[in-house]
Amino acid sequence: MLAVQGIITAAEAAAIVGGLQEIAVEIAGGSFPDDLAFEDIHMNIEKRLIEKIGPVGGKLHTGRSRNDQVALDMHLYLREELTVIDQLIKNLQQTIIDLSRENLDLIIPGYTHLQRAQPLLFAHHLLAYFWMFHRDRERIKGVARGTDLMPLGAGALAGTGFPISRELVAEKLSFGSLYENSVDAVSDRDYLIDFLSFAAILIMHLSRFCEELILWSSAEFGFIELDDAYTTGSSMMPHKKNPDVAELIRGKTGRIYGTLLAILTMMKGLPLAYNKDMQEDKEGLFDVIDQLKAILPLFAGMLRTMTVDRERLAKAVDDDYLCATDLADYLASKGVAFRDAHHIVGEMIAYAARRHKRLKNLKKEERESFHSSLAENIEQLFDPVRVVEARCSRGGSAKAAVKMQIEKALEFINLKI
Amino acid sequence: MLAVQGIITAAEAAAIVGGLQEIAVEIAGGSFPDDLAFEDIHMNIEKRLIEKIGPVGGKLHTGRSRNDQVALDMHLYLREELTVIDQLIKNLQQTIIDLSRENLDLIIPGYTHLQRAQPLLFAHHLLAYFWMFHRDRERIKGVARGTDLMPLGAGALAGTGFPISRELVAEKLSFGSLYENSVDAVSDRDYLIDFLSFAAILIMHLSRFCEELILWSSAEFGFIELDDAYTTGSSMMPHKKNPDVAELIRGKTGRIYGTLLAILTMMKGLPLAYNKDMQEDKEGLFDVIDQLKAILPLFAGMLRTMTVDRERLAKAVDDDYLCATDLADYLASKGVAFRDAHHIVGEMIAYAARRHKRLKNLKKEERESFHSSLAENIEQLFDPVRVVEARCSRGGSAKAAVKMQIEKALEFINLKI
Amino acid sequence: MLAVQGIITAAEAAAIVGGLQEIAVEIAGGSFPDDLAFEDIHMNIEKRLIEKIGPVGGKLHTGRSRNDQVALDMHLYLREELTVIDQLIKNLQQTIIDLSRENLDLIIPGYTHLQRAQPLLFAHHLLAYFWMFHRDRERIKGVARGTDLMPLGAGALAGTGFPISRELVAEKLSFGSLYENSVDAVSDRDYLIDFLSFAAILIMHLSRFCEELILWSSAEFGFIELDDAYTTGSSMMPHKKNPDVAELIRGKTGRIYGTLLAILTMMKGLPLAYNKDMQEDKEGLFDVIDQLKAILPLFAGMLRTMTVDRERLAKAVDDDYLCATDLADYLASKGVAFRDAHHIVGEMIAYAARRHKRLKNLKKEERESFHSSLAENIEQLFDPVRVVEARCSRGGSAKAAVKMQIEKALEFINLKI
Amino acid sequence: MLAVQGIITAAEAAAIVGGLQEIAVEIAGGSFPDDLAFEDIHMNIEKRLIEKIGPVGGKLHTGRSRNDQVALDMHLYLREELTVIDQLIKNLQQTIIDLSRENLDLIIPGYTHLQRAQPLLFAHHLLAYFWMFHRDRERIKGVARGTDLMPLGAGALAGTGFPISRELVAEKLSFGSLYENSVDAVSDRDYLIDFLSFAAILIMHLSRFCEELILWSSAEFGFIELDDAYTTGSSMMPHKKNPDVAELIRGKTGRIYGTLLAILTMMKGLPLAYNKDMQEDKEGLFDVIDQLKAILPLFAGMLRTMTVDRERLAKAVDDDYLCATDLADYLASKGVAFRDAHHIVGEMIAYAARRHKRLKNLKKEERESFHSSLAENIEQLFDPVRVVEARCSRGGSAKAAVKMQIEKALEFINLKI
Repeated sequence: MLAVQGIITAAEAAAIVGGLQEIAVEIAGGSFPDDLAFEDIHMNIEKRLIEKIGPVGGKLHTGRSRNDQVALDMHLYLREELTVIDQLIKNLQQTIIDLSRENLDLIIPGYTHLQRAQPLLFAHHLLAYFWMFHRDRERIKGVARGTDLMPLGAGALAGTGFPISRELVAEKLSFGSLYENSVDAVSDRDYLIDFLSFAAILIMHLSRFCEELILWSSAEFGFIELDDAYTTGSSMMPHKKNPDVAELIRGKTGRIYGTLLAILTMMKGLPLAYNKDMQEDKEGLFDVIDQLKAILPLFAGMLRTMTVDRERLAKAVDDDYLCATDLADYLASKGVAFRDAHHIVGEMIAYAARRHKRLKNLKKEERESFHSSLAENIEQLFDPVRVVEARCSRGGSAKAAVKMQIEKALEFINLKI
Repeated sequence: MLAVQGIITAAEAAAIVGGLQEIAVEIAGGSFPDDLAFEDIHMNIEKRLIEKIGPVGGKLHTGRSRNDQVALDMHLYLREELTVIDQLIKNLQQTIIDLSRENLDLIIPGYTHLQRAQPLLFAHHLLAYFWMFHRDRERIKGVARGTDLMPLGAGALAGTGFPISRELVAEKLSFGSLYENSVDAVSDRDYLIDFLSFAAILIMHLSRFCEELILWSSAEFGFIELDDAYTTGSSMMPHKKNPDVAELIRGKTGRIYGTLLAILTMMKGLPLAYNKDMQEDKEGLFDVIDQLKAILPLFAGMLRTMTVDRERLAKAVDDDYLCATDLADYLASKGVAFRDAHHIVGEMIAYAARRHKRLKNLKKEERESFHSSLAENIEQLFDPVRVVEARCSRGGSAKAAVKMQIEKALEFINLKI
Repeated sequence: MLAVQGIITAAEAAAIVGGLQEIAVEIAGGSFPDDLAFEDIHMNIEKRLIEKIGPVGGKLHTGRSRNDQVALDMHLYLREELTVIDQLIKNLQQTIIDLSRENLDLIIPGYTHLQRAQPLLFAHHLLAYFWMFHRDRERIKGVARGTDLMPLGAGALAGTGFPISRELVAEKLSFGSLYENSVDAVSDRDYLIDFLSFAAILIMHLSRFCEELILWSSAEFGFIELDDAYTTGSSMMPHKKNPDVAELIRGKTGRIYGTLLAILTMMKGLPLAYNKDMQEDKEGLFDVIDQLKAILPLFAGMLRTMTVDRERLAKAVDDDYLCATDLADYLASKGVAFRDAHHIVGEMIAYAARRHKRLKNLKKEERESFHSSLAENIEQLFDPVRVVEARCSRGGSAKAAVKMQIEKALEFINLKI
Repeated sequence: MLAVQGIITAAEAAAIVGGLQEIAVEIAGGSFPDDLAFEDIHMNIEKRLIEKIGPVGGKLHTGRSRNDQVALDMHLYLREELTVIDQLIKNLQQTIIDLSRENLDLIIPGYTHLQRAQPLLFAHHLLAYFWMFHRDRERIKGVARGTDLMPLGAGALAGTGFPISRELVAEKLSFGSLYENSVDAVSDRDYLIDFLSFAAILIMHLSRFCEELILWSSAEFGFIELDDAYTTGSSMMPHKKNPDVAELIRGKTGRIYGTLLAILTMMKGLPLAYNKDMQEDKEGLFDVIDQLKAILPLFAGMLRTMTVDRERLAKAVDDDYLCATDLADYLASKGVAFRDAHHIVGEMIAYAARRHKRLKNLKKEERESFHSSLAENIEQLFDPVRVVEARCSRGGSAKAAVKMQIEKALEFINLKI
């Protein structure tokens, strides 16, 4: 750009580019003499360049300042990491889709208030997380837009007097936009906060999923068994499996929330433009990125390798309460007003509970005593499969609806960031 | 929709709609008998409807549950408030543009580390905030996308057995999309967290601006005077003006950060689907919305009515340090290597400081002793106007660049949410 | 004090005190004319006093400023509320002790990683919370110490020129200490943050307890049943009991953490002395105090009225894994090295699991094949009562140890704040 | 203890102690073979011990578990670091006292709302921080009490079956108390949260002090100059001094708040007893301790080496507004009612401002026109020294009061933790 704009000559530009290419090779090969005596990587490169090509190397810095260079580095770094993390979430989504397809007949109790409420396809339950992760990926797009602003040319804060072309630099570095205000360019940390907000919501989603895996792995639920690779046991209790990975991921939630709050607190009330406080943006960010890159494949692997205890699940869904709503709907379909239908079902359940009987084992006369429509054979109402299949509207738990949901999911998963 | 789908008859639908319209009039007129004995507004409306049109009113609830209704309410509420808040930010942006245009010749010191660094157009400094608020409005768009998901039809968690058309409901309620998973529909709070993240960043921006207004209002800076309406004084010190409004807004930062943390913490580790904990999402959200709707016009008003002390500003920018960069650039343009140029300027400044002289008052011989190029008349280098005008690349502080920036700003400000 | 110090006459003091007493009666009786036109309660009282006793009422304010008066109000208010909250925690502790005493024979599974680990006396498990609340009450003492600083006499920030006696004021208002620095007196918010830290830890403890109650109430655990007063059901599912209160309290955790963060953020980087930002300390504090005063008795009531399902618990503790540690200890007592003992038990458990047998049902020959010491009758090792009773060292789960623990608890509960 | 209790023989104990002493030497000397293949330091020591003294080394672990050992390590670690940090705060307090004594005649403007309010002794202003740090040290005592609980003997969660003496262990390890409940012993993190709350308040205090140093270092205030060791400049602007250290410390505030919230979030809703999530308590804690140990001496050094610009300060306190309160007090002493006195002073200031005159330069006739008492020579009222000296009540800004304050401070500083 400096040459195109006539700020340096073509020969100077060629020398600089040549020198930088040699330095790139040195860095890649590990032979670059990074000297802490020079303040940062930019100073080290400039010094090395001058060693290689003489004083003209000093022109590398023309029209730039440390402030806008560091801002550029952070933008480039985050842009790259975003695509990595996006891919990792996508892999996790794919795992969810695979699991859903492989278990399309499996039914689990659906809960509200951790109380069994209605039976659900296991696949439907898992897919709820697909859509959370889908929103996370949408959020990455928003972060990417905020990161896609080229800061070079802002100088220390006021811009530069050289007739540079910021547009050309943006183009060469594949930025879609540039900062329209030099002061803003060096004091903006929004894109980092956007990233940490995204990370906080992502780990929140994961913490919910982990909580469920931990519950499901308990002796009391017993719905799943996590693979040994994701649990710890002891030589003494070979069958005891502590869901360490799920717990650790859940435990990371605080760490990521904390980093979000750290940078928000740091930025509170800082006057323009750059203040040294802002240097504290880096360690936390790097840590969160490292954590996410470790957590996401670990979580996907844990999910992929878990086994489901179909017997325990079958027992769990064979529960009268899970069918109560459908019994009321049945009465409503026979013309009973909703609130009345609810009331009748309630009395029937209470009656059966007092007698330690299952609803489906009530005799015709007993059923009839609650409402005449119940005289008919209603046994099929208590079949969890039927209850699930009844929820056939879009987004519902019926198999056909879930298949359509998977189609939708597959459509979305391959959309570009 | 229920009638279109044949779930209820056209006559039933007409009766229900008629009854609801009467109720709407009652609510608007304040005569609606809202009875706390009935759990919530939905139950009260249903009860009133039945009073008006008889048992058919009970069919209002067909295919719905409290869970998906409350979810819908929150989506509709936030959608509406987003447009209000967006407009308030836009008004604030317009105030910044107006102020910038009216003060295109005014120069202030630009700071890094709260140390004077380079002179800036006052307009350029103000416009840095324009772009922060611009990103805030972009963020609103993201929040709006996450809010634009129609939850009705999710039932309590599993969907509904009635042959409803969720697409038709979404269309009637002007939603662009709907939840593809019923469990997700009733347990999603992402859109609220997205909103609170947006709010946290917005108040962070405002806290920075407030900090500057507070600094500028101090006896020591003395750059501005806030209007009486936005300060408090006392009968005793009529000229003392405490920048209460700016301080209060800055003080609200913690409150909004706190609400973001509150909901993130609340959601951590909650198993699917609905848990009562989630009810804690409301008070904090309502409070943040109320705060923002109060703060934004207040802040814009404070900005619009402040007066600038041009004399104090002129004194503040008449400072040798603000020109040091340009002096170095000048030497560089004469062929001196950058790092050497910096060194020469440093020595010259130190020399002048020891003699309590201004750089521009150094004699030719003195200047020459540092570098031959300095023999020339360089007085114009010390003119803040010239220093500002030199930053003429895109996004820089020169007047022409700022004018272009204002053009850009005007383009963006009118983009649709 | 003003009269004692000779700043006003005894007659003036008598008039002022008389007037204030009348005003106190008015306030208590609801007839006090609180007028928003006057900035705050202090101004209203002064105005009313002047109406009553004439211009001498203006001397009420002698040697005071709004800043130190508001500081005093907050100290007095918090001091009072601390004793209320302390008593409420004490009541909750008493409930735990009562429950422990009433259930001294009940055994539950103890968990690590939500995996059953070792059997515990139910009382022992409950008492773990006693000690958390004990530390909370110790923390209240610390908060009280920080609150026990008398600020009056600080003036706006620099102290007062009147020959007041701050010691006398402190004594009259029952303060143990006073602020030794006037600037500190009006800008200190430490005691509020201390209180909010205390509240955050308290609600964290409660959130853990709530989590357990929610788990225990689930169909899968089924250990307890919460009383109807603390759950919600529906007419349709009369036996379904959503543990709403426990969930709501758990959900409040975020709100209280958020308020702690809010005030910490608010105080960050504020220069001395008073800044208007600090006014934001009040609403959040009042809310947390109101929340705690509602939550604590609610929680104690929920605990006191829950019923335990002894049958389900008995089944839950009849689990080989819960005895593995003791089997290893048994081998160790026979001279086997610890790590070896662990290994042997592990192999035995694996062997039994493959054969779907319980350990205690293994035949002598089978047991012997793992280690000769296992030839003896070891059935009693599998008795949860014995396993619990083995933990008889101080602080352990054996009944005798728990009884001693309860003695200790009773000692501590009655210590003065 | 194991030998005293007869759990192992005296000879075994001697062998174990001997082996451990050798290992201690190895660790100190760097020759200890720490092998990552063994899970943690405890396992490595046990293994090494067995290598050295044979199978009896395995008895080291008798009556212990990993859970209670790690808990012990953390208690011992924090106990030690607390005394280090306490000493560092004490050093900082000493620096403040030294500075106060050396500058007992220096006056600075006191601020409220960052507006000049009343003149203060510089020493008085600094000492406000002394008391904040004093409360921080009081807080350390509270943290120390919560840390002073010996957990060993808790086993994994239920206690141990060996006839150990926990009291003896507590005594040998210099603990004042022990956990009375084994489940609590392994799941308590209160003491870490207490520490992080302490750290959050401490860094908040430091952030306020840093903010003031940054303001005072600005060209606009110009009250102080920080030493080169605590600022950065550039070769180009040798007199520009960026207060990097003060900014960095202020910037750390978010990091420490974030760590507090991280652990609070982590603990939310965790069922008893140990969960792997809790492992996340360590990194953040270590980081905060490292940060504080770096920050505290750095801050004290920065304070000790700063220089004060007495000329600038003298100019700053020569400001009519700073004396307004005293002028009103003067009128009050002449019998004018307070509110009236305020009003009169207000009118006089407004009058002078309109005429661009200083109050003290108003002529007798002009003064008299506001109130007859002002006819007298009131020039001394405008002397900042007199204004400061008037605040002579305890805790006030007068020199005598400040000297007494320093006496108090010296008393407190040497109190034992």
